[in-house]
Amino acid sequence: MSRIVALDTTDIRFPTSLSLDGSDAMNPDPDYSAAYVIVRTDAEDGVEGHAFVFTIGRGNDVQVAAIDALAGHLVGRELEPLLDDMGSTFRELIGDSQLRWLGPEKGVMHMAIGAAINALWDIKAKRAGLPLWQLLARMTPDEIVDLVDFRYLTNAITRDDALEILRAAEPGRAERERQLLVSGYPGYTTSPGWLGYSDEKLERLAREAMADGFTQIKLKVGADLQDDIRRFRKAREVCGPDFPIAIDANQRWEVSEAIEWVNALAEFNPAWIEEPTSPDDILGHAEIARGVAPIRVATGEHAQNRMIFKQLLQANAISVMQIDAVRVAGVNENIANLLLAAKFGVPVCPHAGGVGLCEAVQHLSMFDFVAVTGTREGRLIEYVDHLHEHFVVPTDIQRGSYMPPTAAGTGMEMKAGSIEAYTWKGQHVLA
Amino acid sequence: MSRIVALDTTDIRFPTSLSLDGSDAMNPDPDYSAAYVIVRTDAEDGVEGHAFVFTIGRGNDVQVAAIDALAGHLVGRELEPLLDDMGSTFRELIGDSQLRWLGPEKGVMHMAIGAAINALWDIKAKRAGLPLWQLLARMTPDEIVDLVDFRYLTNAITRDDALEILRAAEPGRAERERQLLVSGYPGYTTSPGWLGYSDEKLERLAREAMADGFTQIKLKVGADLQDDIRRFRKAREVCGPDFPIAIDANQRWEVSEAIEWVNALAEFNPAWIEEPTSPDDILGHAEIARGVAPIRVATGEHAQNRMIFKQLLQANAISVMQIDAVRVAGVNENIANLLLAAKFGVPVCPHAGGVGLCEAVQHLSMFDFVAVTGTREGRLIEYVDHLHEHFVVPTDIQRGSYMPPTAAGTGMEMKAGSIEAYTWKGQHVLA
Repeated sequence: MSRIVALDTTDIRFPTSLSLDGSDAMNPDPDYSAAYVIVRTDAEDGVEGHAFVFTIGRGNDVQVAAIDALAGHLVGRELEPLLDDMGSTFRELIGDSQLRWLGPEKGVMHMAIGAAINALWDIKAKRAGLPLWQLLARMTPDEIVDLVDFRYLTNAITRDDALEILRAAEPGRAERERQLLVSGYPGYTTSPGWLGYSDEKLERLAREAMADGFTQIKLKVGADLQDDIRRFRKAREVCGPDFPIAIDANQRWEVSEAIEWVNALAEFNPAWIEEPTSPDDILGHAEIARGVAPIRVATGEHAQNRMIFKQLLQANAISVMQIDAVRVAGVNENIANLLLAAKFGVPVCPHAGGVGLCEAVQHLSMFDFVAVTGTREGRLIEYVDHLHEHFVVPTDIQRGSYMPPTAAGTGMEMKAGSIEAYTWKGQHVLA
Repeated sequence: MSRIVALDTTDIRFPTSLSLDGSDAMNPDPDYSAAYVIVRTDAEDGVEGHAFVFTIGRGNDVQVAAIDALAGHLVGRELEPLLDDMGSTFRELIGDSQLRWLGPEKGVMHMAIGAAINALWDIKAKRAGLPLWQLLARMTPDEIVDLVDFRYLTNAITRDDALEILRAAEPGRAERERQLLVSGYPGYTTSPGWLGYSDEKLERLAREAMADGFTQIKLKVGADLQDDIRRFRKAREVCGPDFPIAIDANQRWEVSEAIEWVNALAEFNPAWIEEPTSPDDILGHAEIARGVAPIRVATGEHAQNRMIFKQLLQANAISVMQIDAVRVAGVNENIANLLLAAKFGVPVCPHAGGVGLCEAVQHLSMFDFVAVTGTREGRLIEYVDHLHEHFVVPTDIQRGSYMPPTAAGTGMEMKAGSIEAYTWKGQHVLA
């Protein structure tokens, strides 16, 4: 038996605003940051649990303070009972009646709980000697549904519904693991499309993306329609008429504006329109979906919890669901999200990029393929090519696909040197 | 010209868990708390802006850290331009592209922005020598709509719609001010209904509530149906068959469970069912509203922003809208909420209680009566009789009605002695 002895947090910020990487219509100058936590134990194995919440700069200190506030729940606790019943651990943390008032189940406090949960999963996977995706994909259907809190979901999916989905995918798990290890999970790249880039850079990066084997790219839109038309036309010239090109407005529009703008870009055949308006506006997304059909609507990177995803699906508001590894309360809540998507037959194409989001979220898509939906058809994980060098197990992209990590853990562990070099000291580190 | 010189914050916690005041089906042992801020300036008038976010204990430190994170936006700034254009001040704070990632517009960071905005309103009202309700109610319709950010609302209410509502209420403003000063704004009380109270205490407090002139009471429900039936029956015996008694489940139920439970209590004629399920579940509330009609559904104390209220109204999910003074981004966002309710013809019955919520929210209802809807019909402000003694201008309840404050400011200022006595030191102060 061992105990948790510390939740050590660090405010880590990368100076990405200096190069306009990650610039879009709502986020002109992000500093990609991580509110980072290491869960330390007194176990002889010396295994640490690493996790983080991704932010884009200011406020990363607030996010760190929220993770610190969970120490009272976890420090001094026996580790094994927490790891052996991660469903109860999850319910305990999201159910704290006092902390719950700060959300409930949304924003800074909810993401902090996600970091704590993910750090525990990191320990659990490292102890099992398995990457997270494989650890999850080898659990029984009953063990998997025990991880999920069906509270507030039962008018869309019950425990029995979820069991049925998981049992249907049991045959073929081993074969799909093998397929994954051979050919990976397809990715698409947003690298060409940031608003801060020149047309020349966009064209060059689009050409490189195709040469690298990616089967889709994405352009940021929404600041200026004429600019968007010009940039989309240039991308089409580079990529040809049939190559999938998604567009992403990062919440820029009103509902009617979204419908008009997207229809004005329809001639370029967008693969989807992402985040057309407020991420809280379920009915607005549904109205947009009707107004731009057959162009598909995608959202989710800012969907605060499983109740929002439930409603987006119930309202036929999205045709592509974009989970994020660190926006919700960790692995457990994202399993609920994957099961909801499976129930409604909507493909999950995760949001990634930022700091370590690619490293983290790939595990969830791979688990989904092996043990939930059993398919990669129409599914892609976002890929942005920066900051991977700071991770102990960086993504391995081959011919545009994510190759499955084989190292034990969740993939969220940063290199000690990077943590030290980019610990925020009140101003940017200039490399 | 003067400048903001400090945002001084304090973590204030009252030991309410020791008496089970405020206990309900989701919150068994709240410690009513305030993440408190004082905005100080170098102006010769010495006026300070006081405001707070209400929490129920753990995590109040996280909420304080979030307010601290706004110092960078405000300290050193010239005060008058901020006060003269509170609409732009609001848009600047909610629009910070980096802080926005922590929500967007929800949870800890959004409530912190609300505290900063409300503190500025406190200065503005004190400088004008008017209570907030009167300051707002004497603005022109154009000045009022300039306070509102219509972003994400325009498919439900536009600036022109809002102007029309406000202009229609211009005649009679002075007369309604006079009526308010004479007869106040009706309240209802939740004091009898906490789950932690014995039946005898419930009956005694219900009797007292009627004797005190309140025209409605509210009972907490949702933990155990047989208990609820017994308690509701006892309340009916005390209050008679026609006295309005609302019930409040504090998010306890699944959608189908809510419909069954409320219908099982229908014989006692609830005035409304409040927070039947997750506050994020707009479609769920709409389903419940259809399933329990003609019993009315109420919610809003945890509605994170104006986009949620918009959708609750669009979906016919609520017949009673319950704004809270400190859950959203302050006075400006609540004016948007009042205008939405007016547009949809739904009465606003604010959530209050906690710490200082009564003192704060009464100003918004009074402004609504004088300058927005022009009516008090079917509208009540919640009242809970505790912790008022800690405020410089405590509520003045006469014959069950809130008498309008006449002192300048927003009413959110706590007594210096109370701030000092209840500053959190890691354990409870036992009075």
